[in-house]
Amino acid sequence: MSQLLRVQNFTVSSDGFGAGEHQSLDRPFGHADPGALMAWAGATASWPNRTDPGGSRGLDDYLTRDFAHNIGAEIMGRNKFGPQRGPWQDLEWQGWWGHEPPFHTPVFVLTHHERPSFALSDTTFHFVDVDPATALAQARAAAEGRDVRLGGGATTIREFLDADLVDTLHVAVSPVVLGSGVRLWESPDELLDRFHCDVVPSPSGVTHHLFWRR
Amino acid sequence: MSQLLRVQNFTVSSDGFGAGEHQSLDRPFGHADPGALMAWAGATASWPNRTDPGGSRGLDDYLTRDFAHNIGAEIMGRNKFGPQRGPWQDLEWQGWWGHEPPFHTPVFVLTHHERPSFALSDTTFHFVDVDPATALAQARAAAEGRDVRLGGGATTIREFLDADLVDTLHVAVSPVVLGSGVRLWESPDELLDRFHCDVVPSPSGVTHHLFWRR
Repeated sequence: MSQLLRVQNFTVSSDGFGAGEHQSLDRPFGHADPGALMAWAGATASWPNRTDPGGSRGLDDYLTRDFAHNIGAEIMGRNKFGPQRGPWQDLEWQGWWGHEPPFHTPVFVLTHHERPSFALSDTTFHFVDVDPATALAQARAAAEGRDVRLGGGATTIREFLDADLVDTLHVAVSPVVLGSGVRLWESPDELLDRFHCDVVPSPSGVTHHLFWRR
Repeated sequence: MSQLLRVQNFTVSSDGFGAGEHQSLDRPFGHADPGALMAWAGATASWPNRTDPGGSRGLDDYLTRDFAHNIGAEIMGRNKFGPQRGPWQDLEWQGWWGHEPPFHTPVFVLTHHERPSFALSDTTFHFVDVDPATALAQARAAAEGRDVRLGGGATTIREFLDADLVDTLHVAVSPVVLGSGVRLWESPDELLDRFHCDVVPSPSGVTHHLFWRR
């Protein structure tokens, strides 16, 4: 089987935004509350950031449980990695995730401002100033036969969709309204010319959209 | 996390039967047509028995994709292993699955008629004449920290439910009517006193029932 490029557990507001405006160190999702946006995921037993036992094991858990399944590398945009813009002022910033990031694979951060690679536990961050197809080729080589996760944010996913590089997308549409922010889509229908889509309402209130290539 | 006992991708008819009557060498599911009963699973990209590329990657695929995820052993009833009854007449029977069974772990076959263990590829079959709790203890030890799959059939699942040993169940209810056979339940509601349940209709026509302990 070939190495797929997969979007996993990406959550948008009901009006199509993956994050709010005015990202900062204190507000990784800008004016959006990630706790509200991602409440469906945080309630599951398999949520990677869960620190206590318990959690649900129904539909939503199948989605969070699949987060790392057969994934050998991640690609993310610079704004997922941190709130900085422009040349790096401070190489001490190593992402939002502390000493044990939830990726456990090589991670390729797309940026116009490269910096040296570094490792935290079993996650290694690489900083690459390349186009989406080149980043995907690098990530596939690092994934050693496994799939590659496209981690977001919304702008990065749009770039890879525009380059027709995405094989599957799981997007959870949350019942939160943001009004403005970083937009993934006006409507999921925009992707139906290129993708099949299962629309699956969850008892938690989100609606899972599961896309795969036609 | 503890080692769960999980029922995965078990399919029943709309009237609650996991297999039909009159199982035989030619009819592993008796008068039921497994191709109709399991059509939802066979159409997915991740179905373990798939021999060609392609297949869907929507909701149903998340279920089949999870079949082996963190599973370290399987427990099955003797009637899942073969159509024979009573003492073994022929030790040449090694199951329905050919030289490459889809389990890839130790498998514990519950039977009153023990026989020597054997291996096919990376699956090893053990034959044990023990009660459900003892079988589960043996399977957990063999699973080396991973979960145990309870593979069926319906009678075996009932025995483990009656002993309150099952942690999660995924049962797909197919739009096929059988009228008679090996019954799992009269209604999924029978389990609601002990389990949460997400009821998730799939575009393929089956309705997934995802149970986890209260």
